[in-house]
Amino acid sequence: MSKLLAVGTVAFDAIETPFGKTDKILGGSGTFVGLAAAQFGVQTGVVSVVGGDFPQAYLDMMNQRGINTEGVEIVEDGKTFFWSGKYHNDMNSRDTLVTELNVLADFTPIVPASFKDSAIVMLGNLHPLTQNSVLDQLNEKPKLVILDTMNFWMDAALEDLHSVLKRVDVITINDEEARQLSGEYSLVNAANKIHKMGPKFVIIKKGEHGALLFNKEEVFFAPALPLEEVFDPTGAGDSFAGGFIGYLEKTNDISFENMKRAVIYGSAIASFCVEKFGTQKLEEITENDLKERVQKFVNLVQFNV
Amino acid sequence: MSKLLAVGTVAFDAIETPFGKTDKILGGSGTFVGLAAAQFGVQTGVVSVVGGDFPQAYLDMMNQRGINTEGVEIVEDGKTFFWSGKYHNDMNSRDTLVTELNVLADFTPIVPASFKDSAIVMLGNLHPLTQNSVLDQLNEKPKLVILDTMNFWMDAALEDLHSVLKRVDVITINDEEARQLSGEYSLVNAANKIHKMGPKFVIIKKGEHGALLFNKEEVFFAPALPLEEVFDPTGAGDSFAGGFIGYLEKTNDISFENMKRAVIYGSAIASFCVEKFGTQKLEEITENDLKERVQKFVNLVQFNV
Repeated sequence: MSKLLAVGTVAFDAIETPFGKTDKILGGSGTFVGLAAAQFGVQTGVVSVVGGDFPQAYLDMMNQRGINTEGVEIVEDGKTFFWSGKYHNDMNSRDTLVTELNVLADFTPIVPASFKDSAIVMLGNLHPLTQNSVLDQLNEKPKLVILDTMNFWMDAALEDLHSVLKRVDVITINDEEARQLSGEYSLVNAANKIHKMGPKFVIIKKGEHGALLFNKEEVFFAPALPLEEVFDPTGAGDSFAGGFIGYLEKTNDISFENMKRAVIYGSAIASFCVEKFGTQKLEEITENDLKERVQKFVNLVQFNV
Repeated sequence: MSKLLAVGTVAFDAIETPFGKTDKILGGSGTFVGLAAAQFGVQTGVVSVVGGDFPQAYLDMMNQRGINTEGVEIVEDGKTFFWSGKYHNDMNSRDTLVTELNVLADFTPIVPASFKDSAIVMLGNLHPLTQNSVLDQLNEKPKLVILDTMNFWMDAALEDLHSVLKRVDVITINDEEARQLSGEYSLVNAANKIHKMGPKFVIIKKGEHGALLFNKEEVFFAPALPLEEVFDPTGAGDSFAGGFIGYLEKTNDISFENMKRAVIYGSAIASFCVEKFGTQKLEEITENDLKERVQKFVNLVQFNV
């Protein structure tokens, strides 16, 4: 069985939405990616760092879901990365209230020996040099490297970002970030320019408006499921990415046709994620739930001409 | 052969976009609806009003495309409705520079005798009382009544709008207007509330993010085609509506399954409309162009699980 490696944050989040408010709960991109990929029963290793304040119970839960946390370094005298945010009424924008980097400030990811031969590697939203250092530790070039990034790194480390992009097969990025990275307003033109930076596949996430998957010749569109209520959008993008790579890993097929399905599975898992606070819903969904949800996507867009 | 009736404006537009600027050109909701429906070779009657300044050549062009303009009243000593607008760089917002109602101020639509038995009736974005008066003139309840409206009428004539909505089968409305009309942020909840006002089918237009078609149990999503360039968005919503009803009229089938196809055809025609200024592109497209464009929509969303 081949393996999946995800580098990202494992963190505490405190979230406020129009529906309620949480204390510090489990969060982080690595956590969401791992829990989403775990839906496919693949062997997923998460590389991250936490402090001595991080509950063993969270690691136990991740292990029970099939996530290997050998690569989650525990800095006993440090504190876990903490983010706090408040969503506006439209759920499409949020204010960051607190960002405490803590142990993340000095994070140097170390890929466990048992995951140096991973077939699929997800480079979560971290400094591009950190992302590059993960690739340097692998035995050989993985079958597929996926990178997530954000406007912060385009402002602060654009040259480094361009350097790691050359080594990446798939980039996931939101629409505004795609526009910033490419300097193009049209997402078609933006994807064309980003292809030239390295990634053969460009996934542009549009939140409640779905996601576009581009290769150099074709484009595929996956809608977001129209929901009565979005309870908490935190982690939706990471759940999407985790579902995408989990499906690719499970099916062992990185053709464009299969990537279309992977984008639908990622969208399905993201649609679950937003139904409850934090990782709660991802910890509950069953194989059957996922199957039914994917069918809803089929019904949503299927037509015959 | 059954008939299609469209009530709306026939007007002059002067448009400025980041790509260029026009003098007064042909515009108006009735014009775009008629030209879009005409792609399907159905018998379409437009009811509207113009002034003595309206070029006969425009009417000739509409007639040549198969549009019956018997219902377009010409007020010889009046001036044609004129709108001028400037689009912002993102093409999603615009400033209205000039609105001269002119002959539209006293418009009382008169349905020609030959179209009083129309099977499908499109009530373009006009005062709800004007929309109501059109329905009153028909011999019998049409097979399908489609209504377009906007926030202006929700602010100025909400009670009248509710009155006409009771007589309507399909409403087309944009996302912000759906939220205003229903008082619900979630589009799923908005559609549920609007169903209760009368329309069995609710189409929520999201511009570059596509369109949602709801009946009381199901939802269908049609994406917008990702385009390299949107040249001029004027008339896209009306072209969508015209394509939708033109397809329904041609196929003589108002089942939900066929409405899905109609929404795709409407989206395809709207995607042509935005490629050139005003009605220019709608005057050029062939049956084969349309077929190819619809295939692009199939490719855009088609996947197998």
